[in-house]
Amino acid sequence: MNSYSPTERSRVKRIHERGRYDKETVFAIVDAALMCHIGYIIKGQPYVTPTFHWREGERLYWHGSSASRMIETVEQGVPVCFTASLLDGIVVARSGFHHSANYRAVMAFGTAKLVSEADKEKSLEIFMERCFPGRWPTLRPVTKQEIKATKILSMEIEEASAKIRTGPPKDDEEDYALPIWAGVVPVRTVIDPPVDDPRVLPGVAAPAHIRGLRIG
Amino acid sequence: MNSYSPTERSRVKRIHERGRYDKETVFAIVDAALMCHIGYIIKGQPYVTPTFHWREGERLYWHGSSASRMIETVEQGVPVCFTASLLDGIVVARSGFHHSANYRAVMAFGTAKLVSEADKEKSLEIFMERCFPGRWPTLRPVTKQEIKATKILSMEIEEASAKIRTGPPKDDEEDYALPIWAGVVPVRTVIDPPVDDPRVLPGVAAPAHIRGLRIG
Repeated sequence: MNSYSPTERSRVKRIHERGRYDKETVFAIVDAALMCHIGYIIKGQPYVTPTFHWREGERLYWHGSSASRMIETVEQGVPVCFTASLLDGIVVARSGFHHSANYRAVMAFGTAKLVSEADKEKSLEIFMERCFPGRWPTLRPVTKQEIKATKILSMEIEEASAKIRTGPPKDDEEDYALPIWAGVVPVRTVIDPPVDDPRVLPGVAAPAHIRGLRIG
Repeated sequence: MNSYSPTERSRVKRIHERGRYDKETVFAIVDAALMCHIGYIIKGQPYVTPTFHWREGERLYWHGSSASRMIETVEQGVPVCFTASLLDGIVVARSGFHHSANYRAVMAFGTAKLVSEADKEKSLEIFMERCFPGRWPTLRPVTKQEIKATKILSMEIEEASAKIRTGPPKDDEEDYALPIWAGVVPVRTVIDPPVDDPRVLPGVAAPAHIRGLRIG
């Protein structure tokens, strides 16, 4: 199974030719996004919480402490929408109507569960190594109390779809004759050089896993 | 009323000292974010759709066509969570536990409604002028059919909270003596120079409202 099967829940409905369901595409977008937005319901009210995530195979993980409202109910398993989106450009057309965006987005559906106490430390290590390869062994070791205070949620992807737009605007054919500028304004997320904590000890410089940090 | 009153729904629960409820802060984050994530429910399933938004006073607007699933039910009014988030930096600590992020985020709650046919054209103009000041009058005028095909959703903010983290890591006091690098890796979203549509007419250059485009 190299693709998710589109269902009523996951099928891209508007401009369906932008929809993609193959796992390679879905995973590439998930992995390229530094942050995600988690949608969940409490007492009929939707909530959307931004957080960091990572992926292991078909399973998504995210840091639960910033979504503590979710923690309260998640132990029974709650339906979740995981959305990762990357804005690549603003698409500027000759008519207002055809203005658009170049983007890569994934919506993934499943049931969120808490990662067990036994599995949490390993998960945290994988998360840290995803962000900063080689950093984990250099840190002050994690304590039992800290592990206890951390919540990690995980969700096996039941269904997912990706939606991608690339390229120049698509104007109405007759509008291409108009002397109006059109094109794409590229948008990027960049990482600037690291800023030392004022209390870093003298002679301790940012290591390679920080200086070489890249997004995705 | 210069502040939203925190309720069970909107109160920042985890690390509550990061919570802010004054409208000035909430509006500044909403206006600085180019995109938002809209959470809504259909048949008990949460959905999170990324889209562009704008604000007029206490009212949020977003482009509805990319959330066409929502359109199907929104005419009765649906509860919505509007989340705007800006990642400002990755906070790197001396222990795994104190790694964090610098960010500005808003969660706003209310009931989404379709903007009426009569008000849509004006709304589209405001949206366009928010993104590209001065562009609207230079475009091929919008047609009745295009207005009909566009959906705009709006929501008066009933409740909202902002959550902000800034500054260096907060390590355990004894860990500051360790020879481990710590600090912040700044993250920014940048706009690159515009790329002409290959079919732009000769001599038509990107206007000032495109060359001077800024985020937020």
